[in-house]
Amino acid sequence: MRRKQFDVTSEYAESLDAADKLAGYRERFVISDPELIYLDGNSLGRLPKATITQQSEAVRQQWGERLIRGWNDGWYDAPRRIGDRIGSLIGAAPGQVAVADSTSVNLFKAVLAGLRLRPGRKRIVTDSINFPTDLYVVQGAAELLGGEHEIVRVPSEHDEGTPDLDELVRAIDGDTAVVTLSHVTFKNGFLYDMEAITELAHGQGAIVVWDLSHSVGAVPMLLDEWGVDFAVGCTYKYLNSGPGAPAFIYVNRALHGSARSPIWGWFGRKNPFAFALDYEPAPGITRFLAGTPPMLSLLAVESGIAPTLEAGMSKIRGKSVAQTEYLIDLVDAVLASDGFTVATPRVPESRGSHVALRHSEGYRIARSLIEDMKVIPDFREPDIIRFGCAPLYTTFREIWEAVDRTRRVVTDHLYEKYSDERSEVT
Amino acid sequence: MRRKQFDVTSEYAESLDAADKLAGYRERFVISDPELIYLDGNSLGRLPKATITQQSEAVRQQWGERLIRGWNDGWYDAPRRIGDRIGSLIGAAPGQVAVADSTSVNLFKAVLAGLRLRPGRKRIVTDSINFPTDLYVVQGAAELLGGEHEIVRVPSEHDEGTPDLDELVRAIDGDTAVVTLSHVTFKNGFLYDMEAITELAHGQGAIVVWDLSHSVGAVPMLLDEWGVDFAVGCTYKYLNSGPGAPAFIYVNRALHGSARSPIWGWFGRKNPFAFALDYEPAPGITRFLAGTPPMLSLLAVESGIAPTLEAGMSKIRGKSVAQTEYLIDLVDAVLASDGFTVATPRVPESRGSHVALRHSEGYRIARSLIEDMKVIPDFREPDIIRFGCAPLYTTFREIWEAVDRTRRVVTDHLYEKYSDERSEVT
Repeated sequence: MRRKQFDVTSEYAESLDAADKLAGYRERFVISDPELIYLDGNSLGRLPKATITQQSEAVRQQWGERLIRGWNDGWYDAPRRIGDRIGSLIGAAPGQVAVADSTSVNLFKAVLAGLRLRPGRKRIVTDSINFPTDLYVVQGAAELLGGEHEIVRVPSEHDEGTPDLDELVRAIDGDTAVVTLSHVTFKNGFLYDMEAITELAHGQGAIVVWDLSHSVGAVPMLLDEWGVDFAVGCTYKYLNSGPGAPAFIYVNRALHGSARSPIWGWFGRKNPFAFALDYEPAPGITRFLAGTPPMLSLLAVESGIAPTLEAGMSKIRGKSVAQTEYLIDLVDAVLASDGFTVATPRVPESRGSHVALRHSEGYRIARSLIEDMKVIPDFREPDIIRFGCAPLYTTFREIWEAVDRTRRVVTDHLYEKYSDERSEVT
Repeated sequence: MRRKQFDVTSEYAESLDAADKLAGYRERFVISDPELIYLDGNSLGRLPKATITQQSEAVRQQWGERLIRGWNDGWYDAPRRIGDRIGSLIGAAPGQVAVADSTSVNLFKAVLAGLRLRPGRKRIVTDSINFPTDLYVVQGAAELLGGEHEIVRVPSEHDEGTPDLDELVRAIDGDTAVVTLSHVTFKNGFLYDMEAITELAHGQGAIVVWDLSHSVGAVPMLLDEWGVDFAVGCTYKYLNSGPGAPAFIYVNRALHGSARSPIWGWFGRKNPFAFALDYEPAPGITRFLAGTPPMLSLLAVESGIAPTLEAGMSKIRGKSVAQTEYLIDLVDAVLASDGFTVATPRVPESRGSHVALRHSEGYRIARSLIEDMKVIPDFREPDIIRFGCAPLYTTFREIWEAVDRTRRVVTDHLYEKYSDERSEVT
């Protein structure tokens, strides 16, 4: 996968594509406009062609014809069945992952379960570069339990940059109940050493809750082997499961007897169709379900993850590292002189699958890329343009094109016609 | 709508269909097998034909072509936009209803918000015929707040029957923080007087949380006028929005300044795309959102509710009352001698749109109806067969057929070949 001699020509990009063993997977996705360079698979993955058929079948046959019988035909088990497949991507043996609810709701369950496993401890450790909903959920959980927890937000070494790991080590102490971090940070794509930090937290007796939203499907991991307690993650980014597709929750088997979800819904009860009046948690991961899962969105996860399962995380990671490295080299060679800096770690072991470029005109440049150049990255405050490499469908040639079009936006001053006032939702 | 002279012939049923002004709505739904009598729309509504087109468009165009831009094209506002339409069915002015998460999760939000609006009070009043997930959520919420709340479960007058209203009046006292009930009970279809009970609870200073799952789309109501505090409800029953479709939450405008969701997710934050590190609730109903909603399932609500909006709640309720009355009269005339009793109130003002029949062999009879007779009701422990009348597509002739086939199951002893051991999920 590693290239021999980097150069800035498009021919070189094409030679990388020609040698790419995952290149064939691009055909599994809908590419309605080949001119459009989509580098936002880290926010919303592309539509797998198989999902068109799958959704049509779910709507017409499963719902339309089978009606309520669909619950017996496969809907009821879907959160666990699909959960096990996600488990195989993250090093989790069957029976520990369920798919349902949003990442925020699952994080709420996991953080509260973790805090209540360590009732005497009053410290929650996270970082200032965590995804905001993770911070909000922690703040809300702490408030709900009486406001006695101290939330320690470890700062980053540089503004929007990498975490201060020494500070993190100091922050995790014997009063720490829960350590919760994003495996890959959403802005600059920093990749934590999950194994080391889990071990560190466990050394202090703390529970870990990892958010895998920006790493699952892009970075291999071994949750069981590393002894992770809880994890949650998103399926609509690298897992290509559709807008707002249900998230997953992992609870280590060792905690299945003791950990409790704070949301006692019927899908988390033992034998829910007995309609007993008192709650009794189901065995296993099922207790972390709550209400009836949104089945059309959930079934799209099953077809969404299929190409990832087939390609395998090792090959995906190999291509991801090659693509982010190529992108960083191109930025250095082509864009650095126009005021761009790379905010993503240059060490492959410390980065996920998106690359953050900083530029003082980042917002307007991102707008121009979308409006004028048919390049879709995304923008994150205050000045970050994220280019996401989704190894199943992103080509090296697309990366080359995106950098080239970015160069033209700046050198031709195309961005200057846009206001700096924030107007977009995403 | 009311019939002149009841008789037990199928011709009479056909005459009712001929006079039915809503009869044309049946064509808006997929009826793949006209022989199949589907009387479980109170559990999972039928597939609207328009939803096939809508889902295909959402998958292929909105996701497949527009990709991340879909969030700006209409996804981001969907929870509120669709919420306002549901609001128009329940007497809620715009800005008070949002669609996202499951009924259980929304109930969790509402119950906790209600309890925290009455911090000094230690009593929660509900009933023993409430849907179990409602009871579980209340139990979990009370436990989460320290286990100091007393949960009073008002008994029913008869086993599985109607609530003991005198007991309910006595139960709601000056220490009551929250009263939470299902508007229509799931087993026997009892319809509470929401206005009177809300007034009663408010007279004691309590907060009310209504679960509209079995009434929305079947029974008119005026939440604003009656001063309801919180309500939640399901969209996959009478609102025909698909398996596990996201639920809704209503929060009265008067509480928008004071009520807080316990789940602080980014979709409930003011200006989420600023990615600020500290939570600040959004104004209005938005603060009761949590994570990213499951968009494919959510968009199916928009097409799902369209026929209900068009037909109007008044006509729907008129037909519902006529159908449940007809069904009860038929059961009395045709099935009573075979051991069936009607467990649903005979007074129209006290019932929803499904009718509960009790029979000591209920479970086996329900199985035989499904397996041998192409009639789909559902079964609820210990002995209840529910026949749901969905006025948008259920015909009087279908009701006649269902009763006739039920008679044959019993008189021909067809049910006797089935085990009484519970095996089905639903």
